[in-house]
Amino acid sequence: MASLNAFRWIREGIVFVKRTVYTRVWGMDLDPTCTFSLSAHFDRTYPRGVHVGAETYIAFNVRILTHDMTRGLYLHTRIGRHCFIGGNSLIMPGVTIGDGSIVGAGSVVTKNVPAGTMVAGNPAKVLREDIVVGPYGRLPSADATKQRLVEEGAFS
Amino acid sequence: MASLNAFRWIREGIVFVKRTVYTRVWGMDLDPTCTFSLSAHFDRTYPRGVHVGAETYIAFNVRILTHDMTRGLYLHTRIGRHCFIGGNSLIMPGVTIGDGSIVGAGSVVTKNVPAGTMVAGNPAKVLREDIVVGPYGRLPSADATKQRLVEEGAFS
Amino acid sequence: MASLNAFRWIREGIVFVKRTVYTRVWGMDLDPTCTFSLSAHFDRTYPRGVHVGAETYIAFNVRILTHDMTRGLYLHTRIGRHCFIGGNSLIMPGVTIGDGSIVGAGSVVTKNVPAGTMVAGNPAKVLREDIVVGPYGRLPSADATKQRLVEEGAFS
Repeated sequence: MASLNAFRWIREGIVFVKRTVYTRVWGMDLDPTCTFSLSAHFDRTYPRGVHVGAETYIAFNVRILTHDMTRGLYLHTRIGRHCFIGGNSLIMPGVTIGDGSIVGAGSVVTKNVPAGTMVAGNPAKVLREDIVVGPYGRLPSADATKQRLVEEGAFS
Repeated sequence: MASLNAFRWIREGIVFVKRTVYTRVWGMDLDPTCTFSLSAHFDRTYPRGVHVGAETYIAFNVRILTHDMTRGLYLHTRIGRHCFIGGNSLIMPGVTIGDGSIVGAGSVVTKNVPAGTMVAGNPAKVLREDIVVGPYGRLPSADATKQRLVEEGAFS
Repeated sequence: MASLNAFRWIREGIVFVKRTVYTRVWGMDLDPTCTFSLSAHFDRTYPRGVHVGAETYIAFNVRILTHDMTRGLYLHTRIGRHCFIGGNSLIMPGVTIGDGSIVGAGSVVTKNVPAGTMVAGNPAKVLREDIVVGPYGRLPSADATKQRLVEEGAFS
């Protein structure tokens, strides 16, 4: 579908411009290989506190917070590499999410998440430990699963 | 209030156009009698997996998801007839919500919901079973309740 | 930073206009000293049910609801003075939040919250009681905390 591919390139161009502005103008620490939904928000009240690692994906409407007005806090919030942060999630100020972790959609993450951990809920709780993921938090089984669904006619 | 009625007709016209585009262009399965907030989202990554039944209402900011990038999943997510899906809710990929069920505002629905069930929370849990509702998930007591509030002067 | 201050004045002007329209045109009860994010929503289906007290802050994407279509309810939802309502929170119809209370980000508040109480989660649960806050729900330690962070170089 040529039109969808064109749309994808436009989207990736906008992400490139936004990431460049966030890092060069606002001083955020976003790895050049991380990517994000155009509706994701990075806290501009304390932008230097935002850290996102390599090949990590931030989905729709996610908010990565670095300040707390009620406590006068301005903290560093760190998302590791190879993470997937599900849509509508809130990452609270000062939280560190380890490499290769997955945050389920709609989560409110109030505590640190160790590397290789799947969490979800509000407040977020550990669902699985010692998971192994590839770039953008993709599980090793994902390609085979998609291939099976294609063969079963999901897209035909 | 003539102006409010005009606004309502404009809104219903936009819903009609969006529903037509979602079904004819994107291939979603939306019943012609379902309706939704203009801020509701239906997953366009796997649009044919979206199913919404007759006389069901989808409120503000709801997301009906049909894919999971981390698992390579592309699934059918089914909302029955006579349901009410409260605002800000997420319906996770592959979930089936039975006929005449109510999902409370702000819910994250991760498991199937039987017919005639009220759920809420993140993750969503069952609050009431065997409820009986009319079109758009409206409870039988709703008209009498509104009438009582009108008589008590709520709108005067 | 002159440019940021200019931006702040524009923002406060927009809040002033929105608050005036909400109170004079829609009939909401918003104290002139309350303030809110431009993405906060006040329920316009039953606008006279919206009450927000003095020096209270309503953060990003908050929704203050006053109606329930499934039950035919049109209720008064009251936020006290000196409260802080964290981003993405939903305040359900009919809820009263007492003076000087803090609602954590991403909460769904389904029950009344006593004065001086910190709640969070979905559904929201009490985290701390008998807290003492100043205007906009700011804790007494906030100024000293920010000062310490400044001295430690957080902003240099």
